[in-house]
Amino acid sequence: MTTTWVEGAAGSLFDVDNLPYGVFSRPGEEPRVGVRIGELVLDLAPVSAAEMLDVHHVFEEPSLNAFMAEGPRVWRSVRRWITGLLTDETERDLVEPHLMPLADVTLQLPVEVADYVDFYASEHHASNVGRIFRPDAEALLPNWKHLPVGYHGRAGTVVGSGTPVVRPCGQRKGPADQAPAYGPSTRLDIEAELGFVVGAGSPLGERVPVSAFADHVFGVVGLNDWSARDIQAWEYVPLGPFLGKSFATSISQWVTPLEALGAAWTDLPGQDPLPLPYLAPEEARGLDIDIEVVLGGRVVSRPPYRTMYWSPAQMLAHLTVNGASARTGDLFASGTVSGTERDQRGSFLELSWGGREPFGEELFGTGRTFLEDGDEVVLRYTAPGALGGRIALGEVTGRIEPARP
Amino acid sequence: MTTTWVEGAAGSLFDVDNLPYGVFSRPGEEPRVGVRIGELVLDLAPVSAAEMLDVHHVFEEPSLNAFMAEGPRVWRSVRRWITGLLTDETERDLVEPHLMPLADVTLQLPVEVADYVDFYASEHHASNVGRIFRPDAEALLPNWKHLPVGYHGRAGTVVGSGTPVVRPCGQRKGPADQAPAYGPSTRLDIEAELGFVVGAGSPLGERVPVSAFADHVFGVVGLNDWSARDIQAWEYVPLGPFLGKSFATSISQWVTPLEALGAAWTDLPGQDPLPLPYLAPEEARGLDIDIEVVLGGRVVSRPPYRTMYWSPAQMLAHLTVNGASARTGDLFASGTVSGTERDQRGSFLELSWGGREPFGEELFGTGRTFLEDGDEVVLRYTAPGALGGRIALGEVTGRIEPARP
Repeated sequence: MTTTWVEGAAGSLFDVDNLPYGVFSRPGEEPRVGVRIGELVLDLAPVSAAEMLDVHHVFEEPSLNAFMAEGPRVWRSVRRWITGLLTDETERDLVEPHLMPLADVTLQLPVEVADYVDFYASEHHASNVGRIFRPDAEALLPNWKHLPVGYHGRAGTVVGSGTPVVRPCGQRKGPADQAPAYGPSTRLDIEAELGFVVGAGSPLGERVPVSAFADHVFGVVGLNDWSARDIQAWEYVPLGPFLGKSFATSISQWVTPLEALGAAWTDLPGQDPLPLPYLAPEEARGLDIDIEVVLGGRVVSRPPYRTMYWSPAQMLAHLTVNGASARTGDLFASGTVSGTERDQRGSFLELSWGGREPFGEELFGTGRTFLEDGDEVVLRYTAPGALGGRIALGEVTGRIEPARP
Repeated sequence: MTTTWVEGAAGSLFDVDNLPYGVFSRPGEEPRVGVRIGELVLDLAPVSAAEMLDVHHVFEEPSLNAFMAEGPRVWRSVRRWITGLLTDETERDLVEPHLMPLADVTLQLPVEVADYVDFYASEHHASNVGRIFRPDAEALLPNWKHLPVGYHGRAGTVVGSGTPVVRPCGQRKGPADQAPAYGPSTRLDIEAELGFVVGAGSPLGERVPVSAFADHVFGVVGLNDWSARDIQAWEYVPLGPFLGKSFATSISQWVTPLEALGAAWTDLPGQDPLPLPYLAPEEARGLDIDIEVVLGGRVVSRPPYRTMYWSPAQMLAHLTVNGASARTGDLFASGTVSGTERDQRGSFLELSWGGREPFGEELFGTGRTFLEDGDEVVLRYTAPGALGGRIALGEVTGRIEPARP
């Protein structure tokens, strides 16, 4: 890979070893697919039409789904073609008119989400939650080390980064309360996660083995699984989280293709006991992605994705082991990423240990527990890139608005 | 309402007080929307085009979604128009060429499912499950009478009636087993339910009050929420059912419009304690729908929907109380319908009391517990109609195929 001719891109977090895809619009124009280089967006539809790419129509769509449905051979050849355009100086005249500053476009939700599944794949997160909620029992439940525990979330409320998050209302009942009460959540929280987007689906009745992960998964997004802990605690037995989560899940507007993460694969921390053969523990690998949780402009936590117990390929293999089909646009998330240290925890529930140990006094002058109206949370992600530096994944932002009466 | 001129329809379960919608195809033709009268399907696209209906294009679609998205005013006027066509003898020459015998068409999945939510609204079912799984504890969990407990299921594996159901594989671990094992489910079950289809959605941040149910819900379907009890029992703590359910959910190909159920509304059995005001207990009503569970041609159970504790309007109000949006194509189901009597239970888990008390020896010569390969299950539904007789809702059929290696 040679150097890009695009000014400001070489050596940045959005160099030619990154090239995330997104959907953008400009005033009076239909949303369509673009790719990011440096601080610019390349408008793929006109360039691919001019170059007579077979699949140029997929870039005229208002989501990445049509492009993703083309499958991994097309993903690879499009990436090679884009890389050529942006590194070959002789392409400059063709390409430059279609490069737009980020500031001139509006980014959209990049994916039409089919099904949304949320896993629970961090041992440290699951153990922390167990210790906070069930202090007298084993931190991990008996199934946790045998399968990647997960559940379906609400696909219709997956929103793009920047969408305001309205504080949800619902039923809460504390252990000391006689009866439940209705009102705005008082324990609104984040969950810093990574999301995986299925590009090429699999038919009903067919399993996706761990080894076929890259044939199906197109790329990754940053993901904040907003959670109302008080609503969740009252509702979740026995069928799992529902309204405590379904009001909003934010994802980044940039989808980083799996191909950009080639240098980020790393060994898992280790699985003991060895999972069943369909989870192929000998093949499973993790991702060395650094996350920053930013509250009101201050970094309050740095969850390391490399500490995750279950690999994303094991999640997809488990999701389909019963013959469930996967579809273009399916989104599955890792669950909250938490490391071993206090400042590596991916939720305020953990950072404040259930609200009992306020955090961040040194940053804010006062200790924090759960989200307050007006709070802005940004999740930032970086990974090693193929050029030896780092690449940035899409960031996820959301500001809390007051509950509506 | 006068009598229909369509032969064989008057006085049948598919008289003009029923008129369910579906999507059909014929060899070499694109799937499109039809309405059922007697044993015939009326092809709505050409008739509505000939009559110059504004919305005739919605009937050319391969799902009901475009029609449903038009909202309740259009639903009502289309139903009035169809009723006129089928009862006014002078319309016969226009309509008759577009009436096709059911045997000449192939029915399709009628709805492009957006999000799928499954509730747990039968007190008898929830109590039975509690007694089977937690014999030493209270049958109902503390939240059960305060809110309609529910969770998200997999929308991508909702299939049309008649689709074979392949026995799923997965992890199971009995209480006496040292470690989980992988293999085909040995406790495959049905859940006889009713499904509600959202036609007109609601925006993010807005609640749907109990009183607005009919502004949003287009109609009802028969629904079988196939369940692998052994997979479910091992996986479901703490985040709820996942692979034990996600391999298949069957719905009827006919969607009965809510307007056909005017005579079926009835009082709920009674809610005590009174739920919170947003669940408007004083307004909430139930549906007097009879269900038959048919195994291998024999009726093994008759669950009465009128015994359900929570009303469908309360389910939708609860689903959106946190500001979650609803979309055209959202499907929410009642949960298993079980009455007070043994022969009114809507799952084999309950009919066989956890597999310990085989049922149906008088019908089959041998007692039955869970589903065997080759078993065919049909769920049939009827309700009081506006003409004083009964109407049939769409039935749901599925045959069990052996697990795939």
